[in-house]
Amino acid sequence: MRLFTSDYTEGAHPRIMERLIETNLEQTIGYGEDPHCARARELVKAAIQAPDADVHFLVGGTQTNATVISSVLRPYQGVLCASTGHINAHETGAIEHGGHKVLSLPTTDGKISAAQIRDYVDAHFADESFEHTVQPGMVYISFPTELGTIYSLAELEEISAVCHEKGLPLFLDGARLGYGLIASEMVEGADAVTLPDLARLCDVFYIGGTKQGALFGEAVVITNEALKKDFRYNIKQGGGMLAKGRLLGVQYEVMFEGADAGEILYLAMARNAIVQAEKIRAAIVAKGYPFLAENPTNQVFPILPDAEIARLRPLVGFEGWGRVDAEHSAIRFVTSWATTDEAVEELISLL
Amino acid sequence: MRLFTSDYTEGAHPRIMERLIETNLEQTIGYGEDPHCARARELVKAAIQAPDADVHFLVGGTQTNATVISSVLRPYQGVLCASTGHINAHETGAIEHGGHKVLSLPTTDGKISAAQIRDYVDAHFADESFEHTVQPGMVYISFPTELGTIYSLAELEEISAVCHEKGLPLFLDGARLGYGLIASEMVEGADAVTLPDLARLCDVFYIGGTKQGALFGEAVVITNEALKKDFRYNIKQGGGMLAKGRLLGVQYEVMFEGADAGEILYLAMARNAIVQAEKIRAAIVAKGYPFLAENPTNQVFPILPDAEIARLRPLVGFEGWGRVDAEHSAIRFVTSWATTDEAVEELISLL
Amino acid sequence: MRLFTSDYTEGAHPRIMERLIETNLEQTIGYGEDPHCARARELVKAAIQAPDADVHFLVGGTQTNATVISSVLRPYQGVLCASTGHINAHETGAIEHGGHKVLSLPTTDGKISAAQIRDYVDAHFADESFEHTVQPGMVYISFPTELGTIYSLAELEEISAVCHEKGLPLFLDGARLGYGLIASEMVEGADAVTLPDLARLCDVFYIGGTKQGALFGEAVVITNEALKKDFRYNIKQGGGMLAKGRLLGVQYEVMFEGADAGEILYLAMARNAIVQAEKIRAAIVAKGYPFLAENPTNQVFPILPDAEIARLRPLVGFEGWGRVDAEHSAIRFVTSWATTDEAVEELISLL
Amino acid sequence: MRLFTSDYTEGAHPRIMERLIETNLEQTIGYGEDPHCARARELVKAAIQAPDADVHFLVGGTQTNATVISSVLRPYQGVLCASTGHINAHETGAIEHGGHKVLSLPTTDGKISAAQIRDYVDAHFADESFEHTVQPGMVYISFPTELGTIYSLAELEEISAVCHEKGLPLFLDGARLGYGLIASEMVEGADAVTLPDLARLCDVFYIGGTKQGALFGEAVVITNEALKKDFRYNIKQGGGMLAKGRLLGVQYEVMFEGADAGEILYLAMARNAIVQAEKIRAAIVAKGYPFLAENPTNQVFPILPDAEIARLRPLVGFEGWGRVDAEHSAIRFVTSWATTDEAVEELISLL
Repeated sequence: MRLFTSDYTEGAHPRIMERLIETNLEQTIGYGEDPHCARARELVKAAIQAPDADVHFLVGGTQTNATVISSVLRPYQGVLCASTGHINAHETGAIEHGGHKVLSLPTTDGKISAAQIRDYVDAHFADESFEHTVQPGMVYISFPTELGTIYSLAELEEISAVCHEKGLPLFLDGARLGYGLIASEMVEGADAVTLPDLARLCDVFYIGGTKQGALFGEAVVITNEALKKDFRYNIKQGGGMLAKGRLLGVQYEVMFEGADAGEILYLAMARNAIVQAEKIRAAIVAKGYPFLAENPTNQVFPILPDAEIARLRPLVGFEGWGRVDAEHSAIRFVTSWATTDEAVEELISLL
Repeated sequence: MRLFTSDYTEGAHPRIMERLIETNLEQTIGYGEDPHCARARELVKAAIQAPDADVHFLVGGTQTNATVISSVLRPYQGVLCASTGHINAHETGAIEHGGHKVLSLPTTDGKISAAQIRDYVDAHFADESFEHTVQPGMVYISFPTELGTIYSLAELEEISAVCHEKGLPLFLDGARLGYGLIASEMVEGADAVTLPDLARLCDVFYIGGTKQGALFGEAVVITNEALKKDFRYNIKQGGGMLAKGRLLGVQYEVMFEGADAGEILYLAMARNAIVQAEKIRAAIVAKGYPFLAENPTNQVFPILPDAEIARLRPLVGFEGWGRVDAEHSAIRFVTSWATTDEAVEELISLL
Repeated sequence: MRLFTSDYTEGAHPRIMERLIETNLEQTIGYGEDPHCARARELVKAAIQAPDADVHFLVGGTQTNATVISSVLRPYQGVLCASTGHINAHETGAIEHGGHKVLSLPTTDGKISAAQIRDYVDAHFADESFEHTVQPGMVYISFPTELGTIYSLAELEEISAVCHEKGLPLFLDGARLGYGLIASEMVEGADAVTLPDLARLCDVFYIGGTKQGALFGEAVVITNEALKKDFRYNIKQGGGMLAKGRLLGVQYEVMFEGADAGEILYLAMARNAIVQAEKIRAAIVAKGYPFLAENPTNQVFPILPDAEIARLRPLVGFEGWGRVDAEHSAIRFVTSWATTDEAVEELISLL
Repeated sequence: MRLFTSDYTEGAHPRIMERLIETNLEQTIGYGEDPHCARARELVKAAIQAPDADVHFLVGGTQTNATVISSVLRPYQGVLCASTGHINAHETGAIEHGGHKVLSLPTTDGKISAAQIRDYVDAHFADESFEHTVQPGMVYISFPTELGTIYSLAELEEISAVCHEKGLPLFLDGARLGYGLIASEMVEGADAVTLPDLARLCDVFYIGGTKQGALFGEAVVITNEALKKDFRYNIKQGGGMLAKGRLLGVQYEVMFEGADAGEILYLAMARNAIVQAEKIRAAIVAKGYPFLAENPTNQVFPILPDAEIARLRPLVGFEGWGRVDAEHSAIRFVTSWATTDEAVEELISLL
């Protein structure tokens, strides 16, 4: 049975696997201090046009979020995010385990606005008992969001500006960053969000590998000078310092090299996912089904009659995404670098 | 200027101060193992009719909540509570500092229902990704709530039943417990909530002293056998083990002795607060002002025109409780054991 | 039976109790923002000759240590201290509960040296794997130490200098500070350690009340500008923000007022304890018993034959302090503001 | 330059890489619930002869230690271990970050004894102030230890017995487990420690992959029924739940399959390391150099003259292991599955 359950149903892109095989018997020192990590860092910095950034490689998303947030906040501070934010809704309280409250903001589409941030911060300090509540200490957003939506460049500019004004570091979770960037390019054209934009607008963000075609791995980029110090201690404490760190370096080398010879693999892989998702979306629109969250990325959330969902269950893999009304529920189809034309045609024919 | 800002504007009831003076030069050992604490524990157990309960004395409410919750939960568990719950809204993230997420439930009156608890737990375990979210591990309610409302006995029975069914210890924050009990008696009569009811329905609760006429102090009652073990380690770790523990014992002795000779001081002090609050409430009703939260306890939350609030500001002490619309805001008047007839008459004449 | 088990066997000095009675019915706002706390802060700042210091009042020692250390350290940092340090040996892991390792240094007399600190820090950064170990982030010392010993002014100067050189805030636990200051004056004369010395040499320290004659309370003094910001959030989160904060203010007012009219009560109470301890010490020397730790403060640690200890047990209260050899153990006698000539004479006659 | 710096200088054993390539385009669900993980669990359970054990796959050692320890302890408990234990000395305070004190016991060879554990626990509960100190809640040992030494079966039996008697779960860190098992077989013969022995004697242990020839991965085995519940929540919270969990399953399948057809790869890889290490050890003995820690595993710790170390530095990779006296230091050579005869001959010729 074909699976559209997630973007991590396969291993890694074959070019990544080849390189891991090629480099397998090289001897290197550990913990990210090897030549592959060094080169990967340079490639990432070139791609984001931020030569002074610090780049670190961690293993997974929950770990990355917990490590970054722990490194930024003081003990009495919390992190602002959408109620749907991964750190609030899907990480088994990893942020709280590290001592910090997630300060969730209401959202319908997975996004939060500059105005919400400003209002929250202003309300906090206007309260007579402000020291009795958790101080907002940073902002977390996802690009794309957990509902597959993306911020426009203007929205990110506004969020970045209010964060800067209020002294809150802005952290962008890029677990699916490539999908967001390609979708932004398709939707916004010349106004699309780019990697250099993120380096310019965020204090810290990460370029996700796990859900983008790597075996695993997330590249944390720190541009705010004040957040750079001693970050490797945080990585080690959080369990993210891979002994064979070069595995991360090798993968990011493959994904980010060759920018001068066309699209880097990181974006090329994402582009396939978006192209395939668009086909699925078109088929669903053609069938007249609505969406839980309209979005241009690699997650498609149609709302289907329960009977139709029951019919599809044994035929193709997807995830349930919650009941919508007495007779309808949302489900999720996800595409990736590995999604083929045949697989999508098969899915469409099933629908 | 008279203060109605809180129920801790004065020191302690004179009988408590007298006893502290009388016992001041007694020599005792520390950390709650002295004869005063021992006797106070017996008096509390008699009052709640739970001879097998464990009773511990801590210093303040935030500390008590953090200590109890830390002692009950496993690391991946959180505590269900109303969004207005003190642990969620007024303790600077003390629960998260101890590693646990506060799982807030929506409320308009400060209360949560058995159905909300049941639905949350059922939804958690029905989710395919349940291990990716914080497991509900206990329930926190306040009596009275932060909005001064109280649960009926039937509501508490239902909450207790669902907690028992779902395996969630029920923790009741009784920072203002006496006010709630007296108000319940006045509203419900024979169906009122009593101390023995709480001992029967909760797994752990506390009988607040700080806001009830003691200098400070909270008496934690643990009736669930499984939660008793090693609790004193938790108290010490949380900073709540007062060296001169006898100060807590002496105060609870005074507040709980003499049950056979009329109303114990703990309830008598609360009764005065309720009587005075009723007078204020009646005056506000007479003026035609609405309330933010209708309630029968010692906190009164009228909604007044901003101009009226501005007029009152220099005349009497109260707290702002948030804007209601463009021209009205809620404020809070609080009464206590120390509130006199003259003070209330003066306030009413100002209104 | 007379107790020499600790310096918190009685309530508070009568002058403190009187003032609590006098102020009992005053109305004040809470959480340390009342006029008594304000005045007490000014008195403390005058006594330590540090007009720019921040002064905060907390309830107990474990809480104070946990709050200060949590406010100073980054997550991957630990606190250097003697292996006998209270935070390492007697607080049920409160520092670790807050996320930080206690980095203990060997000691025989309860003290650590500037050289130990320097060597530890140098060794940490010289290690190839330094990011794999906890970074020393601050230094904790006690004055007097848990063995009753005191640092000379020269030793404190050296420790302060190395802390400054290495960028480690110096935190001094003054749970029994007054006893240390009076003992220093007696031993060192003109070279004695004074309150202004501590304000000059430490980044943060506290002036203990609980073990010095107050009912309870510890006054935290922060002189390092970088450590002042948002400290009240830390206090609230740690459960140390007493609702009736004025109780702490009133006590410190009494203990620190009247510097122009002779010795402040804080030091006068300590002086009595030292005078009485000296008498006990002299009697033990006369009997030919050795000491576990020779010290000039209010804790006396004689080593006695087990048979002698058994004989004394039913006659007078003291604490066991561990076996020394097959036939001898150390015990501890403690004096305080409340220790009378008669009590000491009785103890000496028992010996 | 050849590296003998660690056992993670190469990628993974070629058979593992082949299988990852073969399975790369299979579609599976994530988070360890795929068929490869299921089969790997069965293979591991067969190898350890514990059909009722729970087996979980995590990514790295620090993460595994933090996750297991967090899942076992109550908040006021600590973990007993050797002062040299990895959790005490090389994980940047990950255990303390999770809220727990590491209770270190003195050691010269990296091992602790049953007597040390018994004495510590007895002393804790004999102390009058036991609630003021961290309660020992579990025991952590490493096999082999951080100094390469191994416990005999009799020693493990004794430790297990005292842990059982005192109610302390026994956790064995097997980051280099295979090396220990092969060395035990060589040294002890019929009395060697085996995988089934560990399953019988420990409450929880892990079978390390990262340092044993896998790309990465650690297999946690839980045999104590009381520790099994909800462990996956702990994994997710600690960042150890790999999205592409099948990568771990595939690797453990390769390492543990084929027990009926000769030695499983897991042990075969370790055997090579031990054989190569023995050659290096013999050469060092022949040269007359002493060892920092005599041991039979894959880490060799010779003590060399500083001049000799300086001579070797540019010729071969090794780690410094600390100064021994004014003219000598210890260094470390490590072998692995990937160490060839040629490499060892070259090293020996350099010596």
